[in-house]
Amino acid sequence: MRSINEECGVFGVFNAKDAAKITYFGLHSLQHRGQEGTGILTTDGNNLYNKRGLGLISKVFSDEKDFEKLVGNSSIGHVRYATSGSNSIRNIQPFKYDFYDYSIGICHNGNIINAKSIREDLEKKGAIFHSSSDTEVLIHLIRRSEKQGLVEQIKDALNNIKGGFTYLLLTKDTLYGAVDENSLRPLAVGRLKNGSYILASETCAIDVVGAEFLCNIYGGELAIIDKNGLRIEKYTENRNITIAAMEYIYFARPDSDIAEVNVHRARKKAGMILAKEKPVDADIVIGVPNSSLSAASGYAEEAKIPYEMGLIKNQYIARTFIEPTQELREQGVRMKLSAVRSIVKNKKVIMVDDSIVRGTTSKRIVKMLYEAGASEVHVRIASPELIFPSFYGIDISKSVELLAANMNKEQMCEYLGATSLEFLSIDGLIESVNLKDGMRLCLDSFNADYVAGLGDYEKAFLEHITPIQREYLKNINSPYYHKLLKMEEK
Amino acid sequence: MRSINEECGVFGVFNAKDAAKITYFGLHSLQHRGQEGTGILTTDGNNLYNKRGLGLISKVFSDEKDFEKLVGNSSIGHVRYATSGSNSIRNIQPFKYDFYDYSIGICHNGNIINAKSIREDLEKKGAIFHSSSDTEVLIHLIRRSEKQGLVEQIKDALNNIKGGFTYLLLTKDTLYGAVDENSLRPLAVGRLKNGSYILASETCAIDVVGAEFLCNIYGGELAIIDKNGLRIEKYTENRNITIAAMEYIYFARPDSDIAEVNVHRARKKAGMILAKEKPVDADIVIGVPNSSLSAASGYAEEAKIPYEMGLIKNQYIARTFIEPTQELREQGVRMKLSAVRSIVKNKKVIMVDDSIVRGTTSKRIVKMLYEAGASEVHVRIASPELIFPSFYGIDISKSVELLAANMNKEQMCEYLGATSLEFLSIDGLIESVNLKDGMRLCLDSFNADYVAGLGDYEKAFLEHITPIQREYLKNINSPYYHKLLKMEEK
Amino acid sequence: MRSINEECGVFGVFNAKDAAKITYFGLHSLQHRGQEGTGILTTDGNNLYNKRGLGLISKVFSDEKDFEKLVGNSSIGHVRYATSGSNSIRNIQPFKYDFYDYSIGICHNGNIINAKSIREDLEKKGAIFHSSSDTEVLIHLIRRSEKQGLVEQIKDALNNIKGGFTYLLLTKDTLYGAVDENSLRPLAVGRLKNGSYILASETCAIDVVGAEFLCNIYGGELAIIDKNGLRIEKYTENRNITIAAMEYIYFARPDSDIAEVNVHRARKKAGMILAKEKPVDADIVIGVPNSSLSAASGYAEEAKIPYEMGLIKNQYIARTFIEPTQELREQGVRMKLSAVRSIVKNKKVIMVDDSIVRGTTSKRIVKMLYEAGASEVHVRIASPELIFPSFYGIDISKSVELLAANMNKEQMCEYLGATSLEFLSIDGLIESVNLKDGMRLCLDSFNADYVAGLGDYEKAFLEHITPIQREYLKNINSPYYHKLLKMEEK
Amino acid sequence: MRSINEECGVFGVFNAKDAAKITYFGLHSLQHRGQEGTGILTTDGNNLYNKRGLGLISKVFSDEKDFEKLVGNSSIGHVRYATSGSNSIRNIQPFKYDFYDYSIGICHNGNIINAKSIREDLEKKGAIFHSSSDTEVLIHLIRRSEKQGLVEQIKDALNNIKGGFTYLLLTKDTLYGAVDENSLRPLAVGRLKNGSYILASETCAIDVVGAEFLCNIYGGELAIIDKNGLRIEKYTENRNITIAAMEYIYFARPDSDIAEVNVHRARKKAGMILAKEKPVDADIVIGVPNSSLSAASGYAEEAKIPYEMGLIKNQYIARTFIEPTQELREQGVRMKLSAVRSIVKNKKVIMVDDSIVRGTTSKRIVKMLYEAGASEVHVRIASPELIFPSFYGIDISKSVELLAANMNKEQMCEYLGATSLEFLSIDGLIESVNLKDGMRLCLDSFNADYVAGLGDYEKAFLEHITPIQREYLKNINSPYYHKLLKMEEK
Repeated sequence: MRSINEECGVFGVFNAKDAAKITYFGLHSLQHRGQEGTGILTTDGNNLYNKRGLGLISKVFSDEKDFEKLVGNSSIGHVRYATSGSNSIRNIQPFKYDFYDYSIGICHNGNIINAKSIREDLEKKGAIFHSSSDTEVLIHLIRRSEKQGLVEQIKDALNNIKGGFTYLLLTKDTLYGAVDENSLRPLAVGRLKNGSYILASETCAIDVVGAEFLCNIYGGELAIIDKNGLRIEKYTENRNITIAAMEYIYFARPDSDIAEVNVHRARKKAGMILAKEKPVDADIVIGVPNSSLSAASGYAEEAKIPYEMGLIKNQYIARTFIEPTQELREQGVRMKLSAVRSIVKNKKVIMVDDSIVRGTTSKRIVKMLYEAGASEVHVRIASPELIFPSFYGIDISKSVELLAANMNKEQMCEYLGATSLEFLSIDGLIESVNLKDGMRLCLDSFNADYVAGLGDYEKAFLEHITPIQREYLKNINSPYYHKLLKMEEK
Repeated sequence: MRSINEECGVFGVFNAKDAAKITYFGLHSLQHRGQEGTGILTTDGNNLYNKRGLGLISKVFSDEKDFEKLVGNSSIGHVRYATSGSNSIRNIQPFKYDFYDYSIGICHNGNIINAKSIREDLEKKGAIFHSSSDTEVLIHLIRRSEKQGLVEQIKDALNNIKGGFTYLLLTKDTLYGAVDENSLRPLAVGRLKNGSYILASETCAIDVVGAEFLCNIYGGELAIIDKNGLRIEKYTENRNITIAAMEYIYFARPDSDIAEVNVHRARKKAGMILAKEKPVDADIVIGVPNSSLSAASGYAEEAKIPYEMGLIKNQYIARTFIEPTQELREQGVRMKLSAVRSIVKNKKVIMVDDSIVRGTTSKRIVKMLYEAGASEVHVRIASPELIFPSFYGIDISKSVELLAANMNKEQMCEYLGATSLEFLSIDGLIESVNLKDGMRLCLDSFNADYVAGLGDYEKAFLEHITPIQREYLKNINSPYYHKLLKMEEK
Repeated sequence: MRSINEECGVFGVFNAKDAAKITYFGLHSLQHRGQEGTGILTTDGNNLYNKRGLGLISKVFSDEKDFEKLVGNSSIGHVRYATSGSNSIRNIQPFKYDFYDYSIGICHNGNIINAKSIREDLEKKGAIFHSSSDTEVLIHLIRRSEKQGLVEQIKDALNNIKGGFTYLLLTKDTLYGAVDENSLRPLAVGRLKNGSYILASETCAIDVVGAEFLCNIYGGELAIIDKNGLRIEKYTENRNITIAAMEYIYFARPDSDIAEVNVHRARKKAGMILAKEKPVDADIVIGVPNSSLSAASGYAEEAKIPYEMGLIKNQYIARTFIEPTQELREQGVRMKLSAVRSIVKNKKVIMVDDSIVRGTTSKRIVKMLYEAGASEVHVRIASPELIFPSFYGIDISKSVELLAANMNKEQMCEYLGATSLEFLSIDGLIESVNLKDGMRLCLDSFNADYVAGLGDYEKAFLEHITPIQREYLKNINSPYYHKLLKMEEK
Repeated sequence: MRSINEECGVFGVFNAKDAAKITYFGLHSLQHRGQEGTGILTTDGNNLYNKRGLGLISKVFSDEKDFEKLVGNSSIGHVRYATSGSNSIRNIQPFKYDFYDYSIGICHNGNIINAKSIREDLEKKGAIFHSSSDTEVLIHLIRRSEKQGLVEQIKDALNNIKGGFTYLLLTKDTLYGAVDENSLRPLAVGRLKNGSYILASETCAIDVVGAEFLCNIYGGELAIIDKNGLRIEKYTENRNITIAAMEYIYFARPDSDIAEVNVHRARKKAGMILAKEKPVDADIVIGVPNSSLSAASGYAEEAKIPYEMGLIKNQYIARTFIEPTQELREQGVRMKLSAVRSIVKNKKVIMVDDSIVRGTTSKRIVKMLYEAGASEVHVRIASPELIFPSFYGIDISKSVELLAANMNKEQMCEYLGATSLEFLSIDGLIESVNLKDGMRLCLDSFNADYVAGLGDYEKAFLEHITPIQREYLKNINSPYYHKLLKMEEK
């Protein structure tokens, strides 16, 4: 139960009948990665066709007629949550560009940390941007590259952008997929029974369309799929595999594998380690639906305390546009979650949640549990404290909003009104995911280890450092601490 | 995971500020009882106002503007699943009737088994029905009653209708709530902090609006709420409290109490009893989301077998209008549920489901589990065989569609492709709910004990009896068996 | 250019391929008779189908899909302007009634002056009305008639209702059309090349669908069209042919014939007579688009003064929902009509209009002409003073709003700011239409000759008499003058 | 009655309260210039805001809410008919561009004949176009101009584009209006009472918003409106005032003045000259509504033959989406125009039309008149033969579709089925408009005098020359004849 805004999801398929429909179903399973808008772009080998709209994929594609114009055997699609760029139809992807020499579709997941600099630089050279999306930066770089051939131009362009990203590009005869050099955003390859290739942000989309998982595209790689099949090339030697911890903790669907680790398994393991690290005597363990249920069942299993359904999520909530007025809210009107009185009444409850961002939702749940009669509420968070903002495609970008950037654990516990509050350790998190050799987790929000740097965001980051963040940076002797000192000197 | 169509939900509030909004939030928590249409009717003490529409409540009321005309402090609302009457805006409730002497709003949950006879009888006397809904029957009976005063006319009318039902009626100064003489459909009373009364199909709606549960309205009772407060009168002495078992098994939200029994608890208990009655050796227990998770965790706890999340439900599924083509479906494209390969692979799985109606969904899930690598799939159903149709407001009305009306257990197991298949016993079901003294469960679909009779449906019921149903009726020496014999003689 | 609200239009076709489409095109040519809502109802010989909606016919039927369910070879349709009954979808016609013994569709044009009495009487007998439309009254009377057979029941019902009306009724095998006993609302019969019959409010609809005019249905007649062809029966002997003058003056399309008199011709003739009756020296004659152009050209021709296009109507105006604010209006922002400066500048202008109701529009046009430079504006109205309200289906029902009920000619001229103001005489109006022998014009609004009486409206009519109306009634020794005196005595 | 597609309309206002609303009303009066889409862009002195949509302005702005975000005192707006660029929301203007250094809005009326060349050239230099509209070309040229300051950059850009055009540009503090060097598209300046300036395609829009006409912007001029008032600068010395004849003949509203000549007057005069040039004995003169009514009344007045309303246009037609099937059309179902039988029956009719493009509509009307009983139909066209396509913003671009490019007068008369057919002479057209000294008419479609050249269109023009066009070019010794010969040599 979180207020972090989610990132985006991409899906592509090459040379399969009903490509647009397959993309629709793939995107549908990635809907949790973005609900603000969606689009599908296809090619029939000659022309490109696209349809985009604001809202859920089921709203944008609500009728078989919506597929009539999306002809062709190859397709890319996108579900968007705005990590940058405002909420307007012209920011909804995939974008389609028609040039005198060729047409191309493009969509993207993530955040480019040097987009602003590049943009200003290009505008000074006469470039005109139509959207406020980072996605457009890449196509300008491609068109201005002096390399020969589209593949080399794409590689050239990719070498100029920094941050965490996945790009899909589609021309009339080729599907491309690229991942940032640090592998911060996921991209998996699947294969349908008939041999058609799939590219998707998560493996759940590969499963849903009946395809088989083949491999992941890792940092610095460019996948090229055409009539000759799939080849994976490196566009840089400066590679580094650091998988975003947040994909396991909150973003990805439990049935997906990220970097070959199952998300549900990682969460359940995190819950088990949390139970070992931060045990407490209680009657029942409950999870905050839906993202914390795996961790809660892991905690319960390890702690040998009954796992119960003490919180119910209204399954129709996502569609609600009417919110209770403040007055009604004070009268106790609530919509999203209900505490089940007969489960929690007079019970010592361990409430497992995946993470704490602003803390407002957790605070409300703790209150709700007490109102339903719980005698104690022990909050256990299946991830470490979120002390720092993230800049690689996850919308946790303001320090001022992060509870753990502004309070220590005791203050947070008091703020939440909980009996006790504990977090998983960073080591516990690393152990729960247990990545293969040669890979590590990107822990930016937990320890300010920004593997791709901060780019255009560095100045604002340093200017808004909280005392708690400062202390943390000092303790770990972070390079940003020294930059802070230098800035403060001026 | 079910294909039974759900019934309706009603909600009313008397003398509270923002009555329409409170009704909105109440209905929102009852959305699981009906998704085809919804409406809200209010009164400001002078006039009645209403707004109705097809679709989810969040679609019909998508804007604050939708509440502008719903002024007043009292309100009734309805979420509809068509149990009878076709899907058209003119069947969406609440209905509003304006007479020369007064205006009245009315909505209803359930099914009137003698509606057709009454309707034909009234039409012969010049009555004109506008909708095809059973709801309209009551208002015609009220207007033609020769009793004095609206309360007595309502009681008179109620005595003429048979079946399972809840009615809410609202005039400019009074809110009425009535329940059929057998208590087949639920109606609970709540009270807001300021003393305003609430009537609702389920207690979850009372909780959601911040009210406190007060009591239930049972069979044969008419609740009358006006400026003098609440009074509950009996409209008949022919009363009988038989709570619909299906509310516990599938319909109601787990956080609701029906007849003072918590639904989640009843389901968990059913799972535990099922584990005792029908044990099997296995590696993991999984539930079919969402309605079977309580029973599955009960089974797991009793059987001491790990409870795992082997099936994932796409939380955005309810909004999907695009379905995979047959060809895509054969290629393995699926949307609603996914089996989690890394959980079920090479495992002996106990799959707990709440009930089997047609069996098509269960069959698909079993297949999905095998495809995800399960070595054995033991299906355990947390309710008895659904052998007979229901006529009291639950849309299980065709024998030909009920798997258990057409196959014995071995045939069903083979049809599902399961390793084994077992059901909860009727006694187990009764024990799991464990109603208070003086109440019993309505088990109509399980044992043909139609407590309110069959009315206009009897002839069609007898004409479509299957061999398995006939055998069952014979074995229990049911009165319908004798009617069958008589019918066959002719 | 008028602010009278228009009445309704009806159209029916029996036994023709694409009946719904033919009805659509017929209704489209009757759109000027009502813009608030529209509907089409069809039958395929077994069932009845209908579709209704608020707004223009091109909005309600905006897609070929809208016709998919309107199958069958016979159809009735309606365009509505609310003469009574509020603006709600449930008042949009045709209504469809399903009884245990048959189904019937019904729609209606006009106003029933005893509808309120009948309704209250029927409600006391248990009847329930669903709409606030007069249309519903007839069907209740039909269903309660004790005559044998539908034809006799319809005749019986028609004998109970008073006012000005046209009804169309459609069952699975028969199309009926009825006109009030005074012939106040028009109904024409046409025949398609293949022999299919058409019923329509105006002959323009018969022309538009490529049919040939056959005859009119006059007062007290019931047309019955079935597989045996057309027969016209009288339902009363109390018949009287008085055609509504307003159809010629303003309502009907210029290309229609009402009672075999062409509307454009009647208007042009009215303009010519007006020129003779009320000549004036001027440079140009202009008409207020569109309804006054015929009269203006007649005036010009007779007066031998050039006919010019001094006022332009924005042809897109009907679709505008945004109105200038008061401030913008004062700044001169206007939308509907423009005066053409280069035509009227420094000219003595004769401005011909069809009628004056409230006078607000005429006042605005006179002002506009002066602002565009006209040196004199002589207003000539091609109909007599509208002194009295109308109750037979034309929405001029409030005396307080009628300019001529509240001011004499000099006051009106001053109010309009015109150089001079003159009206056509009543005799001139009668001469301009020149009906066949045995017919006369209904002149109710001009001389209070209410041929069908006032029914339920009489009391309010008498209570709101203005001094000018009183004087008029006295001068003509009207029976209403004596009723007034009697009322005042009390 | 025409099938030429109309061009676009632009409107701008600087420093007036309710700027967006004023623009709305201005655009509403220009709706006849484009119905495919519309948009309004405003500035509050800091930011720019816009809203665009497909369809009529009353559809795109259907609610006061649509103006909520269009804050500010300056605004530009556009109604679009696609002369080039496909029908998609991304081609709907005004466009808004946000650069790191400023934001700008832009809209345009007309056609750039060297847009394709410029575009390809710019793309080779890395430019990325987002729309397929010519409008975008100008902004790319501005951003790439090496001049100093926006005014000089705009002038520089304007000097690179050829064709017929009007551009409006709006920044946070300045409104610009530019006209092509040949003055092919109109742009007028008005002033509100409070001194605010208006720019509009036609003077009718200036009248409608209550402003006073000030002057026209002629070829090669750039109007600059800011807090210092209005100044008009020349951006080129290569100027030439050639007003498009088509504005008078068909496009503009009759109440507009183009180059200080009233459109209605010019049309009436054309009708009078036509009557002198091509007299014929007849009973009545009728015009094809609405654009030919002025010419028809002129013809009638000159010929002293009665002017009658023999054709009626359904005023609701523009909103119709449902068309008669071929079968219904053969049965005589028609919607747009009706011939009035009682006017034309047994009459010798002169039917005046403004022009003939494809001839299909004229043919249909002639047939309709005969079917309504006309004994003779003499077609008189109030403009010369349209022999050549136009490329300056009027969609008559295919020779193959022009009746007069493919048939001589006798063949056309036979094709139309008319008794006789005559056209206004070119000299007659010039006389009817009677422009001031120093101005002449652009007669491109009549005599191939393409004052701005053909640019990118020349090759296709020459390749599709018809024999009649070839003969014409030869007879006038046109430079295109020599180019044709040269082309044919190859």
